Amino acid sequence: MDRGAEPKTLYDALVERYYDPEQGYGKGKYADFWEPIPFSRYLNPSLFYEPPQTVLMTATRQQCVDCHTGVSPGWVHSWGASAHTDLDQIRQLPDDDPRAYKKDRLAEVERNLRSLGKLAEDVPLKEVGCIDCHVSVGATHGDHAKDLRLPDAAVCGACHLQEFAERESERDTLDWPQDQWPKGRPSHALDYHANVETAIWAAMPQREVAEGCTMCHTNQNSCTNCHSRHEFSVEQARKPEACSVCHNGVDHNEYENYLLSKHGILYKTLGHSVDWSVPVADSMAAGQSFPTCQSCHMEYRGKFSHNMVQKVRWAFNPTPAIADNLDHPWFEERRGAWVATCSTCHSVSFANAYLELMDEGIKQGLIVEQDAKKVIEQLHADGLLPGQESNRPAPPAPEEDAPGGFFQLFWAKGNNPSAVEREYAEMWEQDLIKHYKGLAHVNPGGWTYTDGWSQLLKRTARINDADTQLREMAALKADLADLKAAQTTAWFSLDTPAKQASFGALGMILLGLGVASVASSRRRTPSDRS
Amino acid sequence: MDRGAEPKTLYDALVERYYDPEQGYGKGKYADFWEPIPFSRYLNPSLFYEPPQTVLMTATRQQCVDCHTGVSPGWVHSWGASAHTDLDQIRQLPDDDPRAYKKDRLAEVERNLRSLGKLAEDVPLKEVGCIDCHVSVGATHGDHAKDLRLPDAAVCGACHLQEFAERESERDTLDWPQDQWPKGRPSHALDYHANVETAIWAAMPQREVAEGCTMCHTNQNSCTNCHSRHEFSVEQARKPEACSVCHNGVDHNEYENYLLSKHGILYKTLGHSVDWSVPVADSMAAGQSFPTCQSCHMEYRGKFSHNMVQKVRWAFNPTPAIADNLDHPWFEERRGAWVATCSTCHSVSFANAYLELMDEGIKQGLIVEQDAKKVIEQLHADGLLPGQESNRPAPPAPEEDAPGGFFQLFWAKGNNPSAVEREYAEMWEQDLIKHYKGLAHVNPGGWTYTDGWSQLLKRTARINDADTQLREMAALKADLADLKAAQTTAWFSLDTPAKQASFGALGMILLGLGVASVASSRRRTPSDRS
Amino acid sequence: MDRGAEPKTLYDALVERYYDPEQGYGKGKYADFWEPIPFSRYLNPSLFYEPPQTVLMTATRQQCVDCHTGVSPGWVHSWGASAHTDLDQIRQLPDDDPRAYKKDRLAEVERNLRSLGKLAEDVPLKEVGCIDCHVSVGATHGDHAKDLRLPDAAVCGACHLQEFAERESERDTLDWPQDQWPKGRPSHALDYHANVETAIWAAMPQREVAEGCTMCHTNQNSCTNCHSRHEFSVEQARKPEACSVCHNGVDHNEYENYLLSKHGILYKTLGHSVDWSVPVADSMAAGQSFPTCQSCHMEYRGKFSHNMVQKVRWAFNPTPAIADNLDHPWFEERRGAWVATCSTCHSVSFANAYLELMDEGIKQGLIVEQDAKKVIEQLHADGLLPGQESNRPAPPAPEEDAPGGFFQLFWAKGNNPSAVEREYAEMWEQDLIKHYKGLAHVNPGGWTYTDGWSQLLKRTARINDADTQLREMAALKADLADLKAAQTTAWFSLDTPAKQASFGALGMILLGLGVASVASSRRRTPSDRS
Repeated sequence: MDRGAEPKTLYDALVERYYDPEQGYGKGKYADFWEPIPFSRYLNPSLFYEPPQTVLMTATRQQCVDCHTGVSPGWVHSWGASAHTDLDQIRQLPDDDPRAYKKDRLAEVERNLRSLGKLAEDVPLKEVGCIDCHVSVGATHGDHAKDLRLPDAAVCGACHLQEFAERESERDTLDWPQDQWPKGRPSHALDYHANVETAIWAAMPQREVAEGCTMCHTNQNSCTNCHSRHEFSVEQARKPEACSVCHNGVDHNEYENYLLSKHGILYKTLGHSVDWSVPVADSMAAGQSFPTCQSCHMEYRGKFSHNMVQKVRWAFNPTPAIADNLDHPWFEERRGAWVATCSTCHSVSFANAYLELMDEGIKQGLIVEQDAKKVIEQLHADGLLPGQESNRPAPPAPEEDAPGGFFQLFWAKGNNPSAVEREYAEMWEQDLIKHYKGLAHVNPGGWTYTDGWSQLLKRTARINDADTQLREMAALKADLADLKAAQTTAWFSLDTPAKQASFGALGMILLGLGVASVASSRRRTPSDRS
Repeated sequence: MDRGAEPKTLYDALVERYYDPEQGYGKGKYADFWEPIPFSRYLNPSLFYEPPQTVLMTATRQQCVDCHTGVSPGWVHSWGASAHTDLDQIRQLPDDDPRAYKKDRLAEVERNLRSLGKLAEDVPLKEVGCIDCHVSVGATHGDHAKDLRLPDAAVCGACHLQEFAERESERDTLDWPQDQWPKGRPSHALDYHANVETAIWAAMPQREVAEGCTMCHTNQNSCTNCHSRHEFSVEQARKPEACSVCHNGVDHNEYENYLLSKHGILYKTLGHSVDWSVPVADSMAAGQSFPTCQSCHMEYRGKFSHNMVQKVRWAFNPTPAIADNLDHPWFEERRGAWVATCSTCHSVSFANAYLELMDEGIKQGLIVEQDAKKVIEQLHADGLLPGQESNRPAPPAPEEDAPGGFFQLFWAKGNNPSAVEREYAEMWEQDLIKHYKGLAHVNPGGWTYTDGWSQLLKRTARINDADTQLREMAALKADLADLKAAQTTAWFSLDTPAKQASFGALGMILLGLGVASVASSRRRTPSDRS
Repeated sequence: MDRGAEPKTLYDALVERYYDPEQGYGKGKYADFWEPIPFSRYLNPSLFYEPPQTVLMTATRQQCVDCHTGVSPGWVHSWGASAHTDLDQIRQLPDDDPRAYKKDRLAEVERNLRSLGKLAEDVPLKEVGCIDCHVSVGATHGDHAKDLRLPDAAVCGACHLQEFAERESERDTLDWPQDQWPKGRPSHALDYHANVETAIWAAMPQREVAEGCTMCHTNQNSCTNCHSRHEFSVEQARKPEACSVCHNGVDHNEYENYLLSKHGILYKTLGHSVDWSVPVADSMAAGQSFPTCQSCHMEYRGKFSHNMVQKVRWAFNPTPAIADNLDHPWFEERRGAWVATCSTCHSVSFANAYLELMDEGIKQGLIVEQDAKKVIEQLHADGLLPGQESNRPAPPAPEEDAPGGFFQLFWAKGNNPSAVEREYAEMWEQDLIKHYKGLAHVNPGGWTYTDGWSQLLKRTARINDADTQLREMAALKADLADLKAAQTTAWFSLDTPAKQASFGALGMILLGLGVASVASSRRRTPSDRS
């Protein structure tokens, strides 16, 4: 796509791909296995939203605001605090105002709308009201029960075309040289697709739990994960907490690591003195002397954009397929881009030394995890996992059974997973990732003792312990079975008290007879001889 | 109680109930089992506080301040920053000051004091000094070694009668239709009572640990858990952190969930621009475009008060007794009140859809927990818990033994609890509650993978694993015992090397004799025949 | 050292000790076991730093700034925000400015530099630029590839002599009366030394992980752990987050405990209104009505300094050697100093009661841990740890094997550690410390249920459970071995199907013969008699 193309041309091309089921739109390949719940309509509105049939009226632009000021004042209040309410406020900003950059953005928005035929040539955009996003840009009225929509990224993208194009470009950026990941993933642009094509997500009968996962995997569908509606505050989206709603927790604790890094403590202690209303590209000039999620991850070779995956190397989780290819140019180029990012505030030597520490540290964790994987797989191959032969139900379709699989973090029945498999599932899907994320975000406790390394070794200890005990137990069972079998296949079997008593009696009788026989023989013999 | 009653009438009635041992005052039904430690006097001053005998003087109002400016300057400094220091500052607030509402409150305080005979009709209240709270309202002097008191809620309530009445009304609000909880609980108003009537709390020999629990369970006794002395800052009490001292951690992680919800990140990113000195009821007008603990939990049908339990449904922990009755009008009315709360900022459809997601999600977690409960109870019934028959001491009185009981989180000896019971105790008392709190506070990671569902399944995996292994072990022991028994009841027992050797010898002899006998028989036979 | 000594005398003495390998400088006693990685040069620059050979030029004072404004703008930006950029700004502060104290400090810095011969008598210090710290104070130019240095504490100490002397005095403060710890430890002053003399740290082959530990253990080498370069903001160093980079996590969660204490929530809710640019000694006057890490730990008997260990009693972890000696004057004097600290804002009675609660609570946790220790040691002594006899590799030198040792948190192979040892290692090194830190920082959940007591009891339950199960398993194995042995040493062994079949056949033959023999005997006998 030519960067100089008409806005409409670009927008139409983006939208076509955005809604293409072949390219990630829709319910995905497991569509037949799951159904939306009522709340799903807010997670993927273009698929599931239907206007409520409780409000039966056609409302004008002003009626929307008036009525909702009464029934949902919080919305209107937030919108009132947004730039959308009165765009003339932007036009009137003095050129030396840090927010003056918005004047250019506004002109661009108008250009986009005009190219799309949604704004007359000589009419300035006055406001973006409820009706523009929730019915149609520039609409004068809408039928509440019929026309109401919840905006997806394409709706925002009609005005904010550059940002839309940037975020959609993530699909092209991630073209893994050794097919470590499907094209375009992992990314914000395809995160709903990734969610619904996860077998266990589609398989789970507990849809209210499953849709909890979806609550973060909606960047594909919406811009409001980062840009909270309806204020769409630049400050809010610029601060690390914007990312923290999703980027936290047992398997991607980026926020926690950042907060405990030097980077984060500078944000915590000095952040209040920064002017957060400027674009991230201008943040240093605005007094920001520390990095945020945004300042590192939205940057690439000195330019900032909504494509956040241009420097992705280790992706979601460390794997041999990545570790073994880090010297491939695709990865080396990205590493170079990171060095450039870090050297905003550090020397190139420092950046190189740290990135080497990070890569080596991740590889060390990966080795530990891969060793444990072998132990689990061997236990499974040997049929030695507790209950493996007697009580291991298969997970629901379309999920398939596997030792230590991802599904075992979200489904359990009988002895699937066994406790030791669950240890391993947490090891690869949580501890190894925390190890990597701690290293990547420079939180020492995150890869040494609190999370990461020490926890990986705890898993190793537990897994090896289970391995030893399960094998000893199996040997014990075999020994015992042998003993039992021996007595069963032998002339007499002693496996019940009755048999034991009979045997005792028989033994006594037999011995008595034997002794008697010997005695009589011996008694006779001398007499025979005499 | 008539809302139009004289302040004195209302106050006297409240105070009578407040100090009534039949209605929750005092050491509780387990009083004989525990004794206070020195620090207990600060946790329940009306029961345990005695003035120190180190300062033997009668001090005037001014002497209190003067002396403590030297010996505990922090107190005096905090008090100096409070509204209590100079009430004329309130009287002089211009009407358009956001804190002008305090003028009405002050007039009300004066009305209360006059009704109680503690302030003359035509004398304005000038200040609330050390002596007013720590000796008696309006006192001119006090004997430090005799008159000194630490204020309880009734002391604060003499001035702040409305707030006192509101918080005490929690006792009446919680009248559970199916007796899910004792009347008035769980609530701030009876939280000390709930604490001292917990058997393991009274039973624990480690009083310094037990009084750690009490440190939060003092809202019944004091207002300072939320309103930190001696500044009593409105801002401090209005912010979520005020609640976080108690509402955090493994079995009630509300604060953590809030911080990682969209609600919390708006507080974190935009909270600095809010004027926190206004009452919570006016917060939106003061620029607050996000909810806090206070704005949702102090609200009921549009009114704000210190009764925080009017919308309580799931209480402290999800149980079948609640899950099975959610369609009872008592619960449905509360759900309706929640929809009204949420629709301040969300549509009614959204609120309903989310509350349904929450309820269903909680029930899904509850099913998993109840299944595990059966496994634990069956293991206990079958006597198969490790050490159950050989090394399971009873907990100290008044606690009583039970598999997976609450006491097992705070007491352990020998094999009580067994490891698998402890798993279950954490499952129902921690993970299930975190699952619920994550859902209730809209933190996706809180009910899907970091806490909640995935952790409940980990418990399931571990409990089922233990179940399988303990039963296999029991079977193995039984098999082995059978084998041993067989050999013991048989003619010879081989359970010691000595016996084995004897048997070996005996076998050889016997065989020798038998062979000899046969041989002699056979030798003889031919000769006989010949 | 005489406090009135010339700055040069004091500085020279401090520096001599600072660089003395006999007193903690250098790679330590395990030097032969480990090698630095590239990043190590930033962790101990005086040992490992070498200027990069990529920039081959001699630069002037101004050239440093100019060039780095282009290649690492973040540095220059931070420096630009620091007091170092323009010292005249300090000289021009009006006397009533809260930062006016800096005028005296600046005069002192000049006195120090003059005493060291680094500043002429009548020349005022104008700035502290790149070159002063990274080449030499007052240098006009430096060879980038040869003269470049990274400053250690001695470099900072040339100007900031008092602070340097204070922090170095920690070596003298900790003179443990019963040798609980080596002299001067645990402290910031010797934290690198402590790190490199930890056997497992030196032993670990994974140097990138090990250097993660070092990242905090660099206070000995540098001042920038607390005073983030290059802004050296007083505000940043004064806030609790400054300490949080290191003082967090599973084995020293001071920050987490503080944040959830009343102390911390006052910081969180009211901290924004404090003027953080004043020295900590003046903080209350600057509106700070709550304690921070700094205000309690830098204070001793009313004086503030960079010696932070003057009130240390329980040190890093509770041990019997400390618990049993708390009534020794050395400990009692420190307790008295704590009472004085707390009584800034609390009564002496309150402080005493709380410190008693803390000490007793810690001792209660210690008892639980020591009981578990005995169980682990007995299992080890009895050879009953899983894999102990078959699969327990020794840790790498210079580490040595021990049950439940510290090294088991950072190294694992085969069955070393066993799972139950790892439980115990976490119990003593993490849970007991969290119990203590929760008590010490007044976070109730920190020593009752979330961390501390309840977790210690979980360990107890798991360890006792393992003890019971391992001993039952050993008994079972012994029984089975006895049964097998009996059958092996007996006339016939039944341990294979072949033998069982043979035995069956033999038994049949033998019985047949015996019966035949008896029959023939009996047959004959009558005929003989007849």
